[in-house]
Amino acid sequence: MATTKRAKKPAAPATAKAKLPPVDAKTLGLIVDLANRVAAAAEKRRDPHLDIPTRSLSNVRFNKSRKIIEMGPQTNCRQLFNLSQAKSYMQTLLVATGCKALIDQQKTTSIRGLYYLLKHTIEGTREETFATQEECDPIIEDLEVSLQSLREELHVYASNRGGMVGPITLIDSGDEIDCSRMGSGGYSIPSIVEADIVRFKQCDAKFILHVEKDTVWRRFNEDKFWRKHNCLLTHGGGQPPRGVRRMLYRLHHELKLPVYCLLDNDPWGYYIYSVLKQGSINLAYESKRMAIPEARFLGIRSRDYDRCKLSQSVQIALNDTDIKRAKQIAAYPWFAGKKGWQKEIETMLKNGFKLEVESLISKDISYVTETYTPERLADADWLD
Amino acid sequence: MATTKRAKKPAAPATAKAKLPPVDAKTLGLIVDLANRVAAAAEKRRDPHLDIPTRSLSNVRFNKSRKIIEMGPQTNCRQLFNLSQAKSYMQTLLVATGCKALIDQQKTTSIRGLYYLLKHTIEGTREETFATQEECDPIIEDLEVSLQSLREELHVYASNRGGMVGPITLIDSGDEIDCSRMGSGGYSIPSIVEADIVRFKQCDAKFILHVEKDTVWRRFNEDKFWRKHNCLLTHGGGQPPRGVRRMLYRLHHELKLPVYCLLDNDPWGYYIYSVLKQGSINLAYESKRMAIPEARFLGIRSRDYDRCKLSQSVQIALNDTDIKRAKQIAAYPWFAGKKGWQKEIETMLKNGFKLEVESLISKDISYVTETYTPERLADADWLD
Repeated sequence: MATTKRAKKPAAPATAKAKLPPVDAKTLGLIVDLANRVAAAAEKRRDPHLDIPTRSLSNVRFNKSRKIIEMGPQTNCRQLFNLSQAKSYMQTLLVATGCKALIDQQKTTSIRGLYYLLKHTIEGTREETFATQEECDPIIEDLEVSLQSLREELHVYASNRGGMVGPITLIDSGDEIDCSRMGSGGYSIPSIVEADIVRFKQCDAKFILHVEKDTVWRRFNEDKFWRKHNCLLTHGGGQPPRGVRRMLYRLHHELKLPVYCLLDNDPWGYYIYSVLKQGSINLAYESKRMAIPEARFLGIRSRDYDRCKLSQSVQIALNDTDIKRAKQIAAYPWFAGKKGWQKEIETMLKNGFKLEVESLISKDISYVTETYTPERLADADWLD
Repeated sequence: MATTKRAKKPAAPATAKAKLPPVDAKTLGLIVDLANRVAAAAEKRRDPHLDIPTRSLSNVRFNKSRKIIEMGPQTNCRQLFNLSQAKSYMQTLLVATGCKALIDQQKTTSIRGLYYLLKHTIEGTREETFATQEECDPIIEDLEVSLQSLREELHVYASNRGGMVGPITLIDSGDEIDCSRMGSGGYSIPSIVEADIVRFKQCDAKFILHVEKDTVWRRFNEDKFWRKHNCLLTHGGGQPPRGVRRMLYRLHHELKLPVYCLLDNDPWGYYIYSVLKQGSINLAYESKRMAIPEARFLGIRSRDYDRCKLSQSVQIALNDTDIKRAKQIAAYPWFAGKKGWQKEIETMLKNGFKLEVESLISKDISYVTETYTPERLADADWLD
């Protein structure tokens, strides 16, 4: 990519490197190694190439002893002198160049920002480096997995949905944050929560209650559930973004807090739990730094419809996609061997309907905070 | 609705009413008045009915002196003894009952929560009060406009997207929040920011910079723009939700802070500005408590492509919907008389492409915070 305009820009002065935080120095080293391997091949007149670990179901396996989804050993070779690979080869190096520039400058950007940073017409041609962001995003994931670095370590962030409240004080970018005194909105969990940005100062919580949606979170916060039960209360705005997953991981591992999940009784809720607990298939390389195998599924359970005597009105009929997804999830290796989960999914399919956490409101507005959740916790009544 | 199960539940004890915050006492009074009018009609053996202000373009007008979109005087009569209106009549009273219960109990819920709270099978029938949430949501808006109360005053909230950072200290639900020390995520603007929940304690900011997206907000926050320029920095996660609009309104009117908007150069960005400034057509009854006619549009401008010497790569071709929307927006009465805006939209159409704020990253990652915005502010170069 030496012919591009952007590559001509001088990098940050070398002296800056000495001041980099240790995490950044390490990531930068990995990027430079990658570039050096390419350069070495070229100097030896060998075809420059990159080996990119394969990100697909075929290259994913469930590690039964660690209880997380892991990436297998398959890689794809991406060569410069191969007509079908040349473009993605160059795009990979371009993304690496962009991430290096971000680290050098000690700045971060979104995946959209990185796309704009790197998108340009290659000099002397009409060729664009990237046609759309959809072309750039998978390359970022390729680089993450090649370098075994989290996106956040490459200074690229996703969205920052997700909130937290409870008896913990942390340092975020130098500011001391008391999460028990953050008003009605709570602490907004940033998308990058690595130790150089977020440090835990003091925590009196005994566990974490993670709920799916901010609307449910708000009910728990308004009822000061976290104060009564001495816990942290988090939500991920649906499928939790990486920042939330990484935050839960750190809280769980560093502060030894158990994680209980209150999610919808539908395939989407099951899947959120699966990702929190074992990791995701697409991003299997992240599991070891994000998955929480000890996380527990508190509810909503399929049998709650009868047990809580819910009214027929709250049923939402399963559609074909739900049924298909439920069967897929039941067949996941990490659910396949679990009687409790098999029965849970079976019961939902037999019910023929799904239930949202909000449906408990039909009992009473605070039923979920005053009855449902305390009872489940007291009875240790959850799925593992 | 006296035949429903839920209506039989005892309301909160009357003594609680005495302790209600003034805002709630007022809203409760309005709901009770509504119910009393219905009851009075029934006692006089007249047909019970409700007059619901019409929420459509035909009943909206632009108040040129106040410079906001206002609702006209048209109303629709909703009668109990009318086969086509009976259901929505009863739904309206049911939503009013639900909001009254929320206020009595001093609790809030989401629009989805209210739906679940009110959804049930009417005793002795197979009739559901609401089939789907889509049936309930417009009734909430009907009630808002009938009572001239904001949704938030009815204790129902929308989402709480949106963040703020800068030199302001406020009290949110009793917690003192210093928005200059909130870490990388900033203060999460709650969906209800009425004076009984959020009070401004001290503010040293001179203006507000409102940006469209959290990703752009993050760039400004990381570069500590608000510290250098002594401002508040807000975002609304796209079209700002009510909480953000109401917060901007209060900051603008109570603390006299000018509002500058940094939005995309596309019809969606124009529309966001239009809503912030004049109010929205669907929710015209809110304008007087949410619209900020003095808000200014800082950019991105159509002429910035040339002026900032942006590369061709950042162009996003306008599609047919964009072109149609742009022409609609140009014809809005509040833009129709403005030369600057007519030229702005004309230039975009002539360009044939739109530009996102993020496209400025192609110049330099901090171009938008270090060059673009400071220059526009220094030159008072904005659209009104």
